[in-house]
Amino acid sequence: MSPFIWPVRVYYEDTDAGGVVYYANYLKFMERARTEWLRSLGIEQEPLLREDNVMFVVADMEAKFRRPARFGELLEVTSEVAESRRASITFAQEIWRGGAGAGELLLSGRVRVACLDARTFRPRSLPDRLAPECLSQVDRAERLLRETP
Amino acid sequence: MSPFIWPVRVYYEDTDAGGVVYYANYLKFMERARTEWLRSLGIEQEPLLREDNVMFVVADMEAKFRRPARFGELLEVTSEVAESRRASITFAQEIWRGGAGAGELLLSGRVRVACLDARTFRPRSLPDRLAPECLSQVDRAERLLRETP
Amino acid sequence: MSPFIWPVRVYYEDTDAGGVVYYANYLKFMERARTEWLRSLGIEQEPLLREDNVMFVVADMEAKFRRPARFGELLEVTSEVAESRRASITFAQEIWRGGAGAGELLLSGRVRVACLDARTFRPRSLPDRLAPECLSQVDRAERLLRETP
Amino acid sequence: MSPFIWPVRVYYEDTDAGGVVYYANYLKFMERARTEWLRSLGIEQEPLLREDNVMFVVADMEAKFRRPARFGELLEVTSEVAESRRASITFAQEIWRGGAGAGELLLSGRVRVACLDARTFRPRSLPDRLAPECLSQVDRAERLLRETP
Repeated sequence: MSPFIWPVRVYYEDTDAGGVVYYANYLKFMERARTEWLRSLGIEQEPLLREDNVMFVVADMEAKFRRPARFGELLEVTSEVAESRRASITFAQEIWRGGAGAGELLLSGRVRVACLDARTFRPRSLPDRLAPECLSQVDRAERLLRETP
Repeated sequence: MSPFIWPVRVYYEDTDAGGVVYYANYLKFMERARTEWLRSLGIEQEPLLREDNVMFVVADMEAKFRRPARFGELLEVTSEVAESRRASITFAQEIWRGGAGAGELLLSGRVRVACLDARTFRPRSLPDRLAPECLSQVDRAERLLRETP
Repeated sequence: MSPFIWPVRVYYEDTDAGGVVYYANYLKFMERARTEWLRSLGIEQEPLLREDNVMFVVADMEAKFRRPARFGELLEVTSEVAESRRASITFAQEIWRGGAGAGELLLSGRVRVACLDARTFRPRSLPDRLAPECLSQVDRAERLLRETP
Repeated sequence: MSPFIWPVRVYYEDTDAGGVVYYANYLKFMERARTEWLRSLGIEQEPLLREDNVMFVVADMEAKFRRPARFGELLEVTSEVAESRRASITFAQEIWRGGAGAGELLLSGRVRVACLDARTFRPRSLPDRLAPECLSQVDRAERLLRETP
């Protein structure tokens, strides 16, 4: 099983005076990968919000910044469902230079995204289309883990 | 008559790999000064939007980037009403290092902000509290101009 | 002659509480298109800076914000050389929704980029590889203009 | 012992289409507070980098997003040295609305900042002026902890 991969080019807007990507901007790259993973499943967040009052917010996260990315580099951002619960998804994410899994690992992190009712800001269950896909990803990951000798 | 002045400190988030403030980020500084000018008049945009469906959007702008600002510097951003119409305000704005009018001029620009009805996104007249203040600023500026020999 | 076109997806990071793209962020999109135009000519800015001390900075710009872009939309950003001088290039740029030239025009602007010596921050001539390409674009545009009855 | 507190106003640039502060932007607020804590000790990062080749980078971090902040709100960002080692400082940071420790807690996090030699990007010991201040903060915190019945 391979994770979802999204390519990101580093532009001037992403860098800081240290000559490397500003630490908060890696979080933007990570969100782009999560958004595109949803889109790859046929889920657009805008109609979900407008029609079903479903919104996603980051509840907690952690990140380890291993190596800096520089202006002009082409990165690959991965996104995998590490855990899926009724009202939240935890993503394991990585940022690579030179190809996910093959080049240099720049960042690894976990991001827990909660599903909220946009009218009340209270937790609500994941949309029907999303829940089985998350469970299936977690299942595959756990099966892989059990099968690894 | 002196323009409204708002101090802005340059942080890492504002800079790019060139070692100076990224060009789009000066526009953030300029908006902070416009927002604080409104606040200095007792006008908060959030209730204006929520209660009166009034929103402001930038309709057009121009800027001349004269000298770069660097990490750690303390800037002063000015904001003056240059022209006031029924449904828009044009601001003349400058960014200075070392004191507005006294130090080095880093940027000068003009920003025309349109007043919209948030439900229809169509132009609407400025809020009652704002219009006279704008007119008075423009009047003072024009009187000053006439009186200058 | 058709301008260089670069697609940009609108993510949450680009929007503001008004529900549309924050005005300064359109300038990021415009820079991405200019950077990718350079890349399409085989010019990478990073080695240019490191090896030849050549840097580009925005000297002045103007933009007309015609319609807002929203979360999730796919935009096309155009970039054309409108004028080329010894030490600067002026780009005419547009942002479209639904296809450049075919859909809705969201923004039109001009950006003059100056070429500097990175050690002295003084103007210097465009890199040899870039100058003829710019001139050729401008020539084509002027020829087209003359030929239009 | 009270932590260092830095006020931050939420502007449009900080929000997203969800109507609240975009998650990555809280990290900007947290860095502003760390930078201003350094400044309060008389330490400016720019000369430190230029003269002593000392730079700080975030090595790892975690954050819990408890409640969202909205446009126009005035926040307080706290910064405390939670752990100090030869080549890194771990900060405990919080973001509050309505006064640190008194209002509503919006975010709590930990950020480990590594001290690098800017020429080699390798770890180096904290600057002489900074190390004792960090140790003293940690000492005070531990003493307070021991004294608490």
